[in-house]
Amino acid sequence: MIIIMERNSTREQAQRVIDFLEKNGFEVRYNIGEVHTVIDALGDKTTITPGRLAGFDGVKEVKIIREPYRLASRDRKQEDTVIEFQNGVKIGGKNRPVVIAGPCSVEDSYDALLEIARAVKEAGGAFLRGGAFKPRTSPYDFQGYGEKALQYLRQAADETGLLIVSEIMDACDLDLMLDYVDVLQIGARNVQNFRLLHAVGKCNKPVILKRGLASTIREYLLAAEHIMYNGNSNVILCERGIRSFDDDFTRNVMDIASIPVIRKYSHLPIIVDPSHGTGQRYLIEPMAKAGLVVGASGVMIEVHNDPENALSDGKQSLSIPMFKEVMARLNKFIDNLDNI
Amino acid sequence: MIIIMERNSTREQAQRVIDFLEKNGFEVRYNIGEVHTVIDALGDKTTITPGRLAGFDGVKEVKIIREPYRLASRDRKQEDTVIEFQNGVKIGGKNRPVVIAGPCSVEDSYDALLEIARAVKEAGGAFLRGGAFKPRTSPYDFQGYGEKALQYLRQAADETGLLIVSEIMDACDLDLMLDYVDVLQIGARNVQNFRLLHAVGKCNKPVILKRGLASTIREYLLAAEHIMYNGNSNVILCERGIRSFDDDFTRNVMDIASIPVIRKYSHLPIIVDPSHGTGQRYLIEPMAKAGLVVGASGVMIEVHNDPENALSDGKQSLSIPMFKEVMARLNKFIDNLDNI
Amino acid sequence: MIIIMERNSTREQAQRVIDFLEKNGFEVRYNIGEVHTVIDALGDKTTITPGRLAGFDGVKEVKIIREPYRLASRDRKQEDTVIEFQNGVKIGGKNRPVVIAGPCSVEDSYDALLEIARAVKEAGGAFLRGGAFKPRTSPYDFQGYGEKALQYLRQAADETGLLIVSEIMDACDLDLMLDYVDVLQIGARNVQNFRLLHAVGKCNKPVILKRGLASTIREYLLAAEHIMYNGNSNVILCERGIRSFDDDFTRNVMDIASIPVIRKYSHLPIIVDPSHGTGQRYLIEPMAKAGLVVGASGVMIEVHNDPENALSDGKQSLSIPMFKEVMARLNKFIDNLDNI
Amino acid sequence: MIIIMERNSTREQAQRVIDFLEKNGFEVRYNIGEVHTVIDALGDKTTITPGRLAGFDGVKEVKIIREPYRLASRDRKQEDTVIEFQNGVKIGGKNRPVVIAGPCSVEDSYDALLEIARAVKEAGGAFLRGGAFKPRTSPYDFQGYGEKALQYLRQAADETGLLIVSEIMDACDLDLMLDYVDVLQIGARNVQNFRLLHAVGKCNKPVILKRGLASTIREYLLAAEHIMYNGNSNVILCERGIRSFDDDFTRNVMDIASIPVIRKYSHLPIIVDPSHGTGQRYLIEPMAKAGLVVGASGVMIEVHNDPENALSDGKQSLSIPMFKEVMARLNKFIDNLDNI
Repeated sequence: MIIIMERNSTREQAQRVIDFLEKNGFEVRYNIGEVHTVIDALGDKTTITPGRLAGFDGVKEVKIIREPYRLASRDRKQEDTVIEFQNGVKIGGKNRPVVIAGPCSVEDSYDALLEIARAVKEAGGAFLRGGAFKPRTSPYDFQGYGEKALQYLRQAADETGLLIVSEIMDACDLDLMLDYVDVLQIGARNVQNFRLLHAVGKCNKPVILKRGLASTIREYLLAAEHIMYNGNSNVILCERGIRSFDDDFTRNVMDIASIPVIRKYSHLPIIVDPSHGTGQRYLIEPMAKAGLVVGASGVMIEVHNDPENALSDGKQSLSIPMFKEVMARLNKFIDNLDNI
Repeated sequence: MIIIMERNSTREQAQRVIDFLEKNGFEVRYNIGEVHTVIDALGDKTTITPGRLAGFDGVKEVKIIREPYRLASRDRKQEDTVIEFQNGVKIGGKNRPVVIAGPCSVEDSYDALLEIARAVKEAGGAFLRGGAFKPRTSPYDFQGYGEKALQYLRQAADETGLLIVSEIMDACDLDLMLDYVDVLQIGARNVQNFRLLHAVGKCNKPVILKRGLASTIREYLLAAEHIMYNGNSNVILCERGIRSFDDDFTRNVMDIASIPVIRKYSHLPIIVDPSHGTGQRYLIEPMAKAGLVVGASGVMIEVHNDPENALSDGKQSLSIPMFKEVMARLNKFIDNLDNI
Repeated sequence: MIIIMERNSTREQAQRVIDFLEKNGFEVRYNIGEVHTVIDALGDKTTITPGRLAGFDGVKEVKIIREPYRLASRDRKQEDTVIEFQNGVKIGGKNRPVVIAGPCSVEDSYDALLEIARAVKEAGGAFLRGGAFKPRTSPYDFQGYGEKALQYLRQAADETGLLIVSEIMDACDLDLMLDYVDVLQIGARNVQNFRLLHAVGKCNKPVILKRGLASTIREYLLAAEHIMYNGNSNVILCERGIRSFDDDFTRNVMDIASIPVIRKYSHLPIIVDPSHGTGQRYLIEPMAKAGLVVGASGVMIEVHNDPENALSDGKQSLSIPMFKEVMARLNKFIDNLDNI
Repeated sequence: MIIIMERNSTREQAQRVIDFLEKNGFEVRYNIGEVHTVIDALGDKTTITPGRLAGFDGVKEVKIIREPYRLASRDRKQEDTVIEFQNGVKIGGKNRPVVIAGPCSVEDSYDALLEIARAVKEAGGAFLRGGAFKPRTSPYDFQGYGEKALQYLRQAADETGLLIVSEIMDACDLDLMLDYVDVLQIGARNVQNFRLLHAVGKCNKPVILKRGLASTIREYLLAAEHIMYNGNSNVILCERGIRSFDDDFTRNVMDIASIPVIRKYSHLPIIVDPSHGTGQRYLIEPMAKAGLVVGASGVMIEVHNDPENALSDGKQSLSIPMFKEVMARLNKFIDNLDNI
């Protein structure tokens, strides 16, 4: 890292920083100048983090050079991570992008869920998604059906040959979730719930980690690093929109460029969620394509048998007939991706 | 709430919304017009949330009129909430603003902590703060000393007559935390960790709930509502800066206006944290004053016996001598608050 | 529009709003309720703007229903606006997306510009872009060569059969610009320089109006409305990234979803500028594709004969060989757009 | 400045950067390392801007060390800039903070304006503000009365002994404005209208330059630098809120911390505008105090004789009786500022 000293800092202040770095095993090169002093330190940032140095008097700024995540970094592992499931489905690398679809929340009717699952399967989807435990901004909103929802999901998935994605909200639900789901999802609001990251890091179940509403790309990859550092390298990232100053037409702003950025700096697969990313039905198809064209390894879409009566997020769900139409075009688009 | 139909929506679409609302016990008044149709619905939003209606075809927008939090709302409870501690300290209302101070993290030396605690006490502080469990962006950063840190805090507080504030990161630590601390803190990253909100809602220990980096004021008050809805009304809010487009000079942007806004719409006390809010030592004093002058019920300040060697957030911590100077001026400022 | 009164507003306050609206020719329907009062007013917002009503005591919020731009609105004009140039090039509607390329600034060498122009032409570009007057954040940065640059542009364009796009910074340059360029560009920083909008509105030269760094979509379309209201309906919009909280990897966040949103609400063509939108060479191609796949009518790309020695924005410019490679793939992509 | 090379950059790439810097008169020190290469260059950034270097292959990042503004910098001029008017009023330094008040727009009645001016004068205000030319988001909004408004302002100011502040929207209005006003104002939307900055830079009339909605502090000081670089050093900065993700309760987020930050890095005075900063009457007084307590040299407040019928921004204007009450408390507050 590089330590830039303040303009009016003293030689003694610089020396204290240098001594501290050397004492901690860093190789230090420095230029103490009239106008500015720059200290270039090479060593293991796991022993001293930039924040430690920022506290020294006279330090203006500490600039990291190497990205702070390691296990998630493309520097460390050149080839794309590919996550493979028992039924042969693969996410990542040069594999065909996957489709993950289903209702925002699993609701009270198994038949309805099965109807959705069949539509997903017929349309070429590989995963059925559905919330059993729902994080909701208001305590007065529907909070999910819990284990019953997981049972419904499992049954519908088994009947149709799909895999299941469902969100885990708390470490204490992990054992329960592991009994039912194929992929754990961590929602945007929990992207820095470090205890939850550590818990899922200790199992080897694949995890979809959604980007937080205000996560920088670096913070997001560090959140993935928390999972990987605890032992689980089966992490799938998911761009689902970030918070911006304009929510009149879309719920969030999808940071489509984050997909090629992350693919450059990390080997982890990243998928795209245009339903949450925009909050608007009519934007699901174009934004799914935008994500795929820049390299997303999959798409997550909300579909509901009766969006008008959905217990959550009806506005951003496709009905089954709309989903079929969108999927017909998306499948053709995916077929052509290699040619474009 | 008000349901605004799209310009080209049909009379039938409006009627379906109206029927649904009436079936659910809402009193509905509507104007089906040539150019626009507006439906005004009065009823219990715990039975139907705006999101439910947004899923209906032809609905352009659902506009809530009453703020969606209830227990936290000033409409429901006119008088300021005051939280009183066994030793007579009070937070909120017309009580003298409190000072909460201490290191970002509790570190390895009890003597150092005691030295800080004594400085806090002498300067008129009422609470000793310090992290035992630390949420850290990177897994390679210091994560806190856990229970040992809580023991140190308790001992230092008892020796000096202070109360303790410390952060809870996960519901499973609740029993442990309750044994040691006087006020639970929920950090900005956990503001929508709903399981944690529910857990602290089920005890009656006072809670400082920090605003999330990207929380709107409404979402923030709804997070407080999650705690209150579960039974704990001893919630203290804390403005600690929000994420903005400029972090060159300050870590976050402190939304000072949120303090009088929240005081208008909620009866809960709100304090201000200029250390995290700015990330800069020299801004702690002016931003503490800015918060107090608009109505904050307290100030949270990071102080460390040796900021250069702090294991976290040294840059934004005051040294003990600086803290004493700042407190001398802040105390005088607080003395004069009623006159200004 | 809808006027929502505050919870504790009086019947008299509502009546004053109603009287004011009726006096101004609005058709008013209202429900004065115990809990809330909502006034629904139908009329010509050019006579009373929402801001006027917001000043009345007791008014909580004024909600517009119809989008406030008119000439730019799809409601007013269903079919896509297509802008046609003398040489037959067309922008908008179902026409093949155009490519606009060239250096950020026109520099001192005509030969270099001609080399770039030839590359643009050979690669199928229709427009040569280049700055003659440069808006620069710092007064110490290169400010452009002015009229000499315009002469170079015109000559290079004439020699190659391209059209010219160049930025106008001030109304007083309009006559000069009109002598040379085929399309005026208004930069992001001038998106609400209303005098400039009015001036270009009074000529009939096509205008590329770039979205401001912090423009909402509604404000952006109102900026276009300022031009159209003054008589010039040849407005081409351009998504070039908005300001966000993360600029570590990209200069701005491209709001790709704004393209289909704007196409839904407006008939104006919109193009995409991935060079400014990302500030990174390696993102130009994927983000150009992302824009095109969601409906952009063109792409603007920075290309420079010697990016290392470019006087501005070298980091985001392609070299000529890179440009040729990118264009080969983009042309193939555009060829296939109808099939995907 | 410091040039950080990419991890996989070559020795040759570094050498080309070094050669280029040395050729341009920079003193260069560098460490070409296995893991990273850092080049430290000392010289005159007016000859090479960081953007120039960023275009070189292998350059990861160019980091400036000295702030890029010079004339506006506290490094260059230690003592506070104080702007003095003919009648003895002074803005900046240790002078008593000034109050600037008046209607958003000057309207059709001279008597109304005079009534406001008298209230401003009686309450201790030094400046009458009022818009003659109004930048308006929509072309259908009131655009100001132009010269007639300037005449009214001048007459009302002369009758009451106030000075005038009014906004200039375009360089071509400069001569007209100079005939009437004592302080030119440049609005937030024009903060990077560089032609306008250059034009006002060439006169010596004091200028209030408002911060842009999305201006970083550095960009804002560079905008001031544009004025100063052209010869006019009478620049007064004005914090008036920045754009954020939450506009439900306030129009903008006031960045109160920017005031002490700017006072640290620049010698220019900065005032605060809580009317535009919040858009809410009830927040004017607390946010004025917050600004003053952190070091603002003045407050700008909107006051209108009849806010309900104001042609613009009624919601954020105080009525005359409210203004008198607020001013009574603000004056007392200002009297006490030295003691607190």
